[in-house]
Amino acid sequence: MNFPSKLVEEAVNEMAKLPGIGKKTALRLVLFLLKQDEQSVVSLGDALVKLRSNTRYCKKCHNISDAELCSVCDNKMRDHSIICVVENISDVMAIENTSSYNGAYHVLGGVISPIEGIGPADLNIASLLGRVKEEDISEVIFALNSSMEADTTTFYISKKLKEIGAKVSTIARGVPIGGELEYTDEVTLGRSIMERVSYKH
Amino acid sequence: MNFPSKLVEEAVNEMAKLPGIGKKTALRLVLFLLKQDEQSVVSLGDALVKLRSNTRYCKKCHNISDAELCSVCDNKMRDHSIICVVENISDVMAIENTSSYNGAYHVLGGVISPIEGIGPADLNIASLLGRVKEEDISEVIFALNSSMEADTTTFYISKKLKEIGAKVSTIARGVPIGGELEYTDEVTLGRSIMERVSYKH
Repeated sequence: MNFPSKLVEEAVNEMAKLPGIGKKTALRLVLFLLKQDEQSVVSLGDALVKLRSNTRYCKKCHNISDAELCSVCDNKMRDHSIICVVENISDVMAIENTSSYNGAYHVLGGVISPIEGIGPADLNIASLLGRVKEEDISEVIFALNSSMEADTTTFYISKKLKEIGAKVSTIARGVPIGGELEYTDEVTLGRSIMERVSYKH
Repeated sequence: MNFPSKLVEEAVNEMAKLPGIGKKTALRLVLFLLKQDEQSVVSLGDALVKLRSNTRYCKKCHNISDAELCSVCDNKMRDHSIICVVENISDVMAIENTSSYNGAYHVLGGVISPIEGIGPADLNIASLLGRVKEEDISEVIFALNSSMEADTTTFYISKKLKEIGAKVSTIARGVPIGGELEYTDEVTLGRSIMERVSYKH
C-alpha cells in the first residue's frame, strides 16, 4: 500500500496490530478518524493510553480494578466463601451480567498450554491455592471454556485443591436454553443426558 | 454491560464509536491492549492523536499530505495537465496502487447527496473549477463510485467544466478482468457492449 502521508501510514500500521483488524480495515478506521473533530480523536487516544498505564489488577482475585481490591472482592454483601475460577476478565464480566452468582472470583489469566509455552507457573494458580488455604472457602467452581487445555488446567488445579481438602465443582454443560436437540452436537447432547438433573416441580 | 473498571469502560466506549466496531469487539480489543506492553499501547494512542492533529491536506488537490503540497502535486515527473477527480483519499490510494496513472488528482471529499444534506458547496468543487481555469488542463477524468449521487455529481461538475471549455472523461465501466460474462450483472454487461472499444492487435 502506498500512503500519501507518513502519519496515515503510522496510524494504519498501529491499528493493524489489533486482532482481527487488517490493513484495509485499519485504513477505513483511520480515514474515519480523520473526519472526526480533533477532541474525539484525542479522547480515544487518551482512553487507550490511560487504560494501559493506570489499570490495576485486584491483588486478591486478579480481576481488573481501579483500586487495590476489585469491586467484587471489596463488596461485603457477596459470599466470599465461594470462588469461581475463570480464564479471563471477560469471563468475569459475562458471569456478572447473568446476575445469578454472588460469590468471589479468581482470574487465572489463561490456561495451561504447552504448545503456547504457558505452564502452571505463568498462571495465577499459587495465589488461588493460597486463598483456599488461608480463607474459609467452602467451594471452588471452575468456569473455564471447553477446550483440551482448559480441561487439563481444571484437572491440574482441582487435584491440588483436593489435596488441601477443598470442594471442587464445574459449571453444568448441556443443551443451551432455546437450543434445539436436533442441532446440538453429539458431545454436548450426550453429556446433557449423562449429567441429567432430577426434575424439580 | 457491567465493567469492572471505569478505565476499561471508557476505552470500550471510545473504541465502539469506530465504524463496524460494536461493544463486544471493542471489549475484545481493549482486553488485547491490556495484555500488550505499555510502550506499544502508547505508540498506538500517539499515532492516532498525531494523525488527527498534524495531518494536513494538500492545498491544491485536497489529498492528505505531510507538507503544503502532497507528494503527487509536488512531483515534477507527473503530468499536471490531467486531473483525476475522486471522492475520497482512499480512491487516490487505490488508483496509485495500479501504477497506471501519472497525472494529478482532485479529492472532492464526497458526492452531492441531498438526503445527507451535502450540497455542491460542501465539496471541493470551486477549487477544481479554479484549477481548470488557471492551469493548463488538457483533460479532467471522473473516477467516482457507481451510485446515483456520484452520477449526479459527475453531471453537475462536468456541465460547469464544459462551460469553461475543459475536456471531460470518465473511467471505463465494463466486465472486470477475470470476471465471467455469465455472472456479470446486466447493467454492466450491457454497458460493456455499448461502450465497446476497437480491438488493438
